[in-house]
Amino acid sequence: MKPTNPLVDPLLTDFYEYSMAYAWWLNGTHEEPAVVDVHFRRNPFDGGFTVFAGVEEVLRLVCDYHFTDDQIAVVRRFMPEDAQSGFFDWLKTVDCSRVRIRSLREGSLAFPRVPLFIVEGPIAVVQLLEAPILALINYPSVVATSAARIRLAAGWDKTLMEFGLRRAPGPDGGISASRYSYIGGFNSTSNVKAAQLFPGLRPSGTHAHSWVQSYLGLGEVKRRDITGPDGRIHDLVELSLQYREELGGNHTNEGELASFIAYARAYPRGFLALVDTYDTLKSGVPNFLSVALALNHVGYRPVGIRIDSGDLAFLSRRARQLFREVSEQFEVDFGKLTIVASNDIDEQTLLALGQQGHEIDSFGIGTRLVTAGGEALGGVYKLTVASGVPRIKVSGDSAKITLPGKKRAFRLYAGESPLAVVDLLTLADEAAPEPGQRVLCRHPFDETKRLIVIPSRVEELYEVIWDGKPNLEIVRPLNETRQYVLDQLAGFRQDHLRPVNPTPYKVSVSAMLYDFLHSLMASEVPIAEIS
Amino acid sequence: MKPTNPLVDPLLTDFYEYSMAYAWWLNGTHEEPAVVDVHFRRNPFDGGFTVFAGVEEVLRLVCDYHFTDDQIAVVRRFMPEDAQSGFFDWLKTVDCSRVRIRSLREGSLAFPRVPLFIVEGPIAVVQLLEAPILALINYPSVVATSAARIRLAAGWDKTLMEFGLRRAPGPDGGISASRYSYIGGFNSTSNVKAAQLFPGLRPSGTHAHSWVQSYLGLGEVKRRDITGPDGRIHDLVELSLQYREELGGNHTNEGELASFIAYARAYPRGFLALVDTYDTLKSGVPNFLSVALALNHVGYRPVGIRIDSGDLAFLSRRARQLFREVSEQFEVDFGKLTIVASNDIDEQTLLALGQQGHEIDSFGIGTRLVTAGGEALGGVYKLTVASGVPRIKVSGDSAKITLPGKKRAFRLYAGESPLAVVDLLTLADEAAPEPGQRVLCRHPFDETKRLIVIPSRVEELYEVIWDGKPNLEIVRPLNETRQYVLDQLAGFRQDHLRPVNPTPYKVSVSAMLYDFLHSLMASEVPIAEIS
Repeated sequence: MKPTNPLVDPLLTDFYEYSMAYAWWLNGTHEEPAVVDVHFRRNPFDGGFTVFAGVEEVLRLVCDYHFTDDQIAVVRRFMPEDAQSGFFDWLKTVDCSRVRIRSLREGSLAFPRVPLFIVEGPIAVVQLLEAPILALINYPSVVATSAARIRLAAGWDKTLMEFGLRRAPGPDGGISASRYSYIGGFNSTSNVKAAQLFPGLRPSGTHAHSWVQSYLGLGEVKRRDITGPDGRIHDLVELSLQYREELGGNHTNEGELASFIAYARAYPRGFLALVDTYDTLKSGVPNFLSVALALNHVGYRPVGIRIDSGDLAFLSRRARQLFREVSEQFEVDFGKLTIVASNDIDEQTLLALGQQGHEIDSFGIGTRLVTAGGEALGGVYKLTVASGVPRIKVSGDSAKITLPGKKRAFRLYAGESPLAVVDLLTLADEAAPEPGQRVLCRHPFDETKRLIVIPSRVEELYEVIWDGKPNLEIVRPLNETRQYVLDQLAGFRQDHLRPVNPTPYKVSVSAMLYDFLHSLMASEVPIAEIS
Repeated sequence: MKPTNPLVDPLLTDFYEYSMAYAWWLNGTHEEPAVVDVHFRRNPFDGGFTVFAGVEEVLRLVCDYHFTDDQIAVVRRFMPEDAQSGFFDWLKTVDCSRVRIRSLREGSLAFPRVPLFIVEGPIAVVQLLEAPILALINYPSVVATSAARIRLAAGWDKTLMEFGLRRAPGPDGGISASRYSYIGGFNSTSNVKAAQLFPGLRPSGTHAHSWVQSYLGLGEVKRRDITGPDGRIHDLVELSLQYREELGGNHTNEGELASFIAYARAYPRGFLALVDTYDTLKSGVPNFLSVALALNHVGYRPVGIRIDSGDLAFLSRRARQLFREVSEQFEVDFGKLTIVASNDIDEQTLLALGQQGHEIDSFGIGTRLVTAGGEALGGVYKLTVASGVPRIKVSGDSAKITLPGKKRAFRLYAGESPLAVVDLLTLADEAAPEPGQRVLCRHPFDETKRLIVIPSRVEELYEVIWDGKPNLEIVRPLNETRQYVLDQLAGFRQDHLRPVNPTPYKVSVSAMLYDFLHSLMASEVPIAEIS
């Protein structure tokens, strides 16, 4: 297994990882065993949850991790001239055969302080993996989280299409946006390359304004005939003009009408027209209905319209009303034709549209999804054990204190139709919590916050993804991961997931981890002196 | 020439480009000649300018543009089952041999409404290029613009290091961030892969907190000897302890001291220490100074410190003061040692630090640069000529009206040491403005806004980058493009470039283009009726 993006190789890392590796090597301590936690400190979007993604790409990185001579030459070029060559001989031997990685499952709802990965191995090798691991989970997690929030805001019955390629942060940003918005709950993408790379992802899209503008009049419809499902041939121009007459829409833009006819002729079973090039209600929708009635006459069912500007709530309601009126007037079944909306739609717009009332079935969402509002996951990579000794990074800000030692994590569920109530971190060597047993859960830093849970279900959160060889069971089809995300969104209390001011989901530590943490803190943090 | 990212191929586009191409093909109008303008409507960051980038990658895309059988099979898979196979035969013949592209130079300061590219060719081929062209310039331009703004905020004498890989939107987002922040005025990157790919780009970086945390005490310094430039061998631990004693700093963290000693031993000529793991002023700086004095004793010059948390203005001033005090006490020249700052630095932080006064020489900038604050360029791809007839896209919002027809663009400079005063768009077939001649410049939509310029210099803005074959002259070394950006930043009035409320730079049209635009608008925009 290789990384999806061929640019991902051992050079895709920060230079300081090499600086440190060399210095450890020179000190003879580069193969000391280390454990690192990867975690984050706050959810993106000021939200209550994060959808964790990028695990498979981390596995692909680790699988293929080795240095070619060319790559070693590049590292050597940037190191000091007097760097000892034994280091480069060592680099040549580096791979991940002695590395072990546990991880939350791809698509897990994740929360601050719960490690996403626990990476164990020779310290210099583990360190080299820092920047690429963080780089490979950051954007996927932010996009998947954004997509899940958009799914919650749009409602379960809407179709969500990712349209972001042109505004994405570069080619593989666009491809990642497609892949990870799908697992976060979207239905399709505009990006053909992503659909090629990831089985299960379907591309969607019809036409742009340029299609409409490229027609000035009906003379540009060079081929007018259309064959019905029954084999009979009709003149689609004549039929469309006839229906336009009956609709009283003689003043619609003729170039637009021509473009719709040419488009319907190419896609008689997939006729969806962009109706806002000239005037949505005065020209676009009447032109669409003229051609839709003609298609219906021939024996095909039109699909619907896309609106890309203006007041989407108002325009969609008016369009729906026109669909219904035409249905009655012509005794056709156009009432439920699809209305697609696009144009800078984001979570806020969806919430506002929901309040105003709208008739949109399907949303095309681009810029705000792929730029993720400038959010980053803020993943950090913190040493918790070195040379067998637990390490703690103390800080005046308790959110920045790293929980020391090698750990496990459990999600405890309560109730008859179980909802997640708390994520519990424990030391690696203590007994796991069990269903039906009392479990003491402590806030890691606030001694007064204690909670007894008698879980109806206990889920161990980590799976081993790599242990010198890949665990291929964790490479799941995209739609399975997507379903996993959607199931979790239904398996948490909705106040943890709401868009604004969510109730923080609890992340606790076991009594043993609490005591261990605080004894280490007491010995590591000096007592301040005032004199 | 191939695209830097191997994922860039003809499938990296929006599906609707194929939908339209097929429908044009079916109508027999797919090879009608078309002209498209690529432009944007507002500068990112509410700013006064955009640094345009990504041109070389567009050229690489176009150079290599052709369909393999596998790619055609993918397109066919997503098209309706009854799509005619002649279309796929045509796709097999598609390349850019009949396409011509003019472009602003890579690194140009660019402004809303001035086309970045003018693309001419068979309409269906030109349309297929829409999404990839927009995708290839979006992130590069936003990053280069952000970098230039940061350069202006930091001042010309500061070193700017891009540290964004781990927070970048994916692997090639990280690589692009390195490349385009450099051309926007940064000095280096942390990203080794980017430094491999782009000659001239140097990676920088020293060590992380994990380096410091991996040492608990001096016992972990396994090799204590250091050889001076004069060949004499010293014990670096003993020397450092001696200087720590003299500095009165016995209470500093011993693990940190050990880590600094091991690091200095590896990089005697490049000793730069991260000093905020425990306590910047009580532990980090004294430990640094102990080892720096030891190194100095041996005959090496230490480099400096990095501060990654806390009040950067205060800490840098205090550190500078300590450097000066030590310089006096020990008769060494430590006053100008480098102080590097990192930790969520952005343009606003730099402006605030500038006001507070600080002693920072060098900034490591990551998240805010690579996420670009969620900004996108908003490039659009608009048909201006089809089948030889100029097209206009009218809109109630004049910012969205496309200037019709095939055009040229000029930058007019005035004054003895010429400053840019206006960008002038003209029709392709009118006479170019000339230095020393009166040039009437009109606002495209406001008839009252007219300006006479007698330019001291006239610069034609477009260069042909592709005309069935590449213009290799436009592929310039990175540092040349960087210098071009910096020269322009000095060649515009500073009020156009200021961070907040910049004076808009003028973009005008010639009298002929004005008349042409308004005659087309009069004929295309229907008169509204009230009845």
